[in-house]
Amino acid sequence: MNHSLFEQLENYNQMDYYPFHMPGHKRNSEIKGFPVGIDITEIEGFDNLHHASSVLLEAQQKAAALYGAEESFFLVNGSTAGILSAISAAVSSNGSILLARNSHKAAYHGIFLRNIRAEYVYPEMIESYGICGGINPNEVKRALEHNRSIEAVFITSPTYEGMLSNIEEIADITHRNHAVLIVDEAHGAHLNPSGGEFPAGALDGQADIVIQSLHKTLPSLTQTAVLHVQGERVNRGKLRKYLQIYQTSSPSYLFMASIDSCIHMLNTQGRELFRVYKERLNRFYEQVKDLKFLHLLSPEEVEGIAAIQAMDASKLCIFSSQAGISGSRLYNYLLERYHLQMEMAAGEYVLAMTSIMDREEGFARLNQALHELDQEVCQSAENASEWAQLPKAEIIMTAAEAEEQEREILPFIESEGRVSLEYRYVYPPGIPVLVPGERITREVLEVLSYYHSKNLNIQGQESGKGKIAVINRMK
Amino acid sequence: MNHSLFEQLENYNQMDYYPFHMPGHKRNSEIKGFPVGIDITEIEGFDNLHHASSVLLEAQQKAAALYGAEESFFLVNGSTAGILSAISAAVSSNGSILLARNSHKAAYHGIFLRNIRAEYVYPEMIESYGICGGINPNEVKRALEHNRSIEAVFITSPTYEGMLSNIEEIADITHRNHAVLIVDEAHGAHLNPSGGEFPAGALDGQADIVIQSLHKTLPSLTQTAVLHVQGERVNRGKLRKYLQIYQTSSPSYLFMASIDSCIHMLNTQGRELFRVYKERLNRFYEQVKDLKFLHLLSPEEVEGIAAIQAMDASKLCIFSSQAGISGSRLYNYLLERYHLQMEMAAGEYVLAMTSIMDREEGFARLNQALHELDQEVCQSAENASEWAQLPKAEIIMTAAEAEEQEREILPFIESEGRVSLEYRYVYPPGIPVLVPGERITREVLEVLSYYHSKNLNIQGQESGKGKIAVINRMK
Repeated sequence: MNHSLFEQLENYNQMDYYPFHMPGHKRNSEIKGFPVGIDITEIEGFDNLHHASSVLLEAQQKAAALYGAEESFFLVNGSTAGILSAISAAVSSNGSILLARNSHKAAYHGIFLRNIRAEYVYPEMIESYGICGGINPNEVKRALEHNRSIEAVFITSPTYEGMLSNIEEIADITHRNHAVLIVDEAHGAHLNPSGGEFPAGALDGQADIVIQSLHKTLPSLTQTAVLHVQGERVNRGKLRKYLQIYQTSSPSYLFMASIDSCIHMLNTQGRELFRVYKERLNRFYEQVKDLKFLHLLSPEEVEGIAAIQAMDASKLCIFSSQAGISGSRLYNYLLERYHLQMEMAAGEYVLAMTSIMDREEGFARLNQALHELDQEVCQSAENASEWAQLPKAEIIMTAAEAEEQEREILPFIESEGRVSLEYRYVYPPGIPVLVPGERITREVLEVLSYYHSKNLNIQGQESGKGKIAVINRMK
Repeated sequence: MNHSLFEQLENYNQMDYYPFHMPGHKRNSEIKGFPVGIDITEIEGFDNLHHASSVLLEAQQKAAALYGAEESFFLVNGSTAGILSAISAAVSSNGSILLARNSHKAAYHGIFLRNIRAEYVYPEMIESYGICGGINPNEVKRALEHNRSIEAVFITSPTYEGMLSNIEEIADITHRNHAVLIVDEAHGAHLNPSGGEFPAGALDGQADIVIQSLHKTLPSLTQTAVLHVQGERVNRGKLRKYLQIYQTSSPSYLFMASIDSCIHMLNTQGRELFRVYKERLNRFYEQVKDLKFLHLLSPEEVEGIAAIQAMDASKLCIFSSQAGISGSRLYNYLLERYHLQMEMAAGEYVLAMTSIMDREEGFARLNQALHELDQEVCQSAENASEWAQLPKAEIIMTAAEAEEQEREILPFIESEGRVSLEYRYVYPPGIPVLVPGERITREVLEVLSYYHSKNLNIQGQESGKGKIAVINRMK
C-alpha cells in the first residue's frame, strides 16, 4: 500500500468495523483531546510490531531506506529501549564493554542488567568552554588492544551539545579488533535526512547499531525512536529478542503512525524544509555575532579540536560565562522575561534546541532577547573559565555486583573514599558523574559540589538530599 | 491545582511560551492528526515522571486514592514495564519465584533478565470448556512450604478470559510464608473503580504489587498502565529504580495526560458509566441465552469451580465448540460478514472485550450476528470438548542459563526430549507453552500441534517455521 500508516488508520476509523477488542476507549469520539480514532491494537490488517510482516514491516523498511540502514526497528519506549537492547544483544552476560563515560544513564542500566564489566573511554574536553568534545579514536584503539575481551564499543555522537566524533575511524578500529560499534545518536536523527545541510551520521561511518530519538530533533511524538542495524557483526535474532523484552507487548499505533508520518514528511518535503531551516540557522549565527558578553558557540570554533569531527549547528549553546551570570540565571531570564523555554541550563551556558519545525518568530525573539540581555544585564566577568570535568572513575566492582553488597547511608560530605551504591547525574542530560560500584573520590565530591553551587538539578539521591548509600562491608 | 494534566497542557499551549527544547515537532500546529500541542517534555512546571514532585506526583496520588493503593506509578511502557520492575524489585538476582504458569511472557522475560529460578503453579482447568480457571491457594501453600527460598508469588487475575483467583487467601498464605504477592491485573483495571458492578480487585485482596493496563479495559491510550503498591514488604527504592530502568527517560505527556483524564473520568462519571454499562451487559447475557449452538460463558456457570473466585462478565467468551465450527471460523464470520472485530480467536471460542465506552449499537449488532450465525451456519457437533491444557513443564535450567548454551536448529517434529532455547506461545494472549531451558516433551508437541490444527497464531519461532533451536551440548 502507498498510504501512510496514519492514512490507513484514519480510513479504517471511517469504516463501520466495531471494536470488541482493546483499547477500552473503543475509538469512542466522545473522548475529546486524544486521537483515539487511530489508536488501535494488533487487529486484522495492521500487523504486529514484534513480528512485523506487512504494514509495519513496510513502514520500517521505508525508514531503513531513508537512513541507509539494512534494517530499522521502530521504538515505542524511546531510545532507552534501543540502548538496552543493543547492549544486551552485542555483549554477553558477564562480558566486557568499552563505554564512553559521557553516555546516557540508559547505557549504564543495560550494563547493570546484564552484569557487564565496563571500561571507560573519556571524551576530550573543549578546554575554553568546559564541555565534552569527541572521543579520540586512538583512545579506543589503546583500550581495545589492551583488553581483548571487549565485545562492544558504545559512544554518544553527537553529544547533547552537538559534538560529533570521528565514527568512521572508530568503526574501523573497532571492527579490526573484532568488536561491535554501537552509537547513541539520540540527538542526531536529523543528520542523515538533511541532505548535507548537517554533518553525516553514524550509519555513514559504518557503525553497526545506531539508535536515534525521532522526537528529539524531528517532528515525531515524544518517546518515539528508531534503531538501525547494518552488517553481519550483530546477531539479529538476539537483537529482536531484546527489543521484545524491553518494550511493551501493546505498542502504541499512535506512536508508530507518528514515526511513519515523520519519515514520510522527510521523504517528501525534507530537502526543502532543511534548506529553509539551515538558512535560518545561518542567519541567526550571523545575527548574534555582535553580542559583547554572551556568546553562541559556533562549529568553526570547535571543529578539528578536542577530537571533534564536526559540530551540529542545530544546537545553540549560548555561553554566559564571560557575561557575569550563570547558565541558570540566563535560563531564568529567557523564560520569565521573554517566555523562551530553553532545553537546559548548565553551569556556564544554556542550550536551545532547534528543528525543521521552528518558526521564524522563535529565532527573532531569541535574537532580540539575547541582545537586550547582553546590553542590560551582562557585564564583563573575571571568573570566565570555571567548569567541571567528568571525574575519572575508579571502578571497584560492576554495578550488578554492587547491588549484592550490604549498604550503609552516610552524609554525602563524609563519604569520600567509600564505594557508592547510587548514581549521581545532572538531568538533563543524564550523564552519570558517579555509578554504583565506583569509589567516591575527592574529585567526584568537588564536581558535585560545583554543580550544586550552580543550582543544577542533581538526581540519583535515592537516600535523600545530602545523603548517599555506600557499601558497608563486603559480604 | 485542580485542573487535569490535560487542561494544564492545553492552557500552556495557548500561552506564548516558545519551545527551544524537545520534542522536535515544536508543538507546530501544521502537524495534522497528532495532538502535538500537548506533547511536551519535562519543562518548568510540568514535573518529571521519574522523580515526581508536583503535578505528576499529584496525578499519581489521585490514581492511588481511586484504587485504594498506598502508592501508584504511571507506566508509559505498558504493563510490561510494571511486570519487569515488580519481579526485579521483589526477587533477588539468582533468587526464586513461584509463577503461575499461565502468566504473560513479560513475567518470563523478567525472570530471564535477573536469572531467577522459577517454580510453577498451574491454574485449575474448567474441564467442560478447556480454559484456565483460578490458582488454588492450597497449591501456593504447598509450593511455599516446600521451597522456603521463594521470595515472591506471581499470578494473573483476572485471566484473559476474566477468571479471578482468591487473592485474599493467596495473599494471606504468601505473607505467612514471608513472600511478596505480585498480581498481574492487566485485565482488571476496571474492577475496583466499578463501585461493585464487577468483582473486587487484587488490591482489596491485599496483594503487595498490582499491575493494571489502563488501555485494556478503560478509556486510556494504548500502552498506558499503572503499578500500585501497598504495605511494607516491597522495597520501594528498588521498585523505583527498576521503573526508571525499564522505561524511557522521555515519557510521553500525551500518555500521562491520557491516564490522568481516565482517572478523572472515573472519579467524576464512573458510577453512572458503570451502572449503564453493567445493565447493557446483563441485557446482552439475557438476550443470547436462547442460542442453540453457540454459547456465551456466564459467571454463574464457573464461579466456585476450578478455583474461580469470581468471573469478570465484561469478557464475552463465545464458545463455538458445540456449534460445529472452530473459534477462528466464528471470528472470521463475525469480522467479514458483520464487521465485528473480536479481540481473539481460540480453538473453541472467540473473546469479545467490552468497556464503559461501548455503545448500544455494538451489543445490538453482536446479538443479531450471533443469532443469525446460530441459525444459518451452526449445527450440532460431536467433538465438543477438544481442547489443550497447558503442558506440565520440565525445567532443566533457568532461561538465563539456557542462553549460555551452544545451540542447534532442528525440525520441530524431531525435537522431542531436547531442551528448548525458544519460546512458543499463542498471541494473543501471549502465555508460553514452552520456555527456554525447558524440555520439549511429547505433551508440548501435542499441544502445539493442536494449536496449529486450529489455525492459531503461534509465535516464538525465531529459527523459522517448523524449526526450533535446542541445546546442542552443555558447555
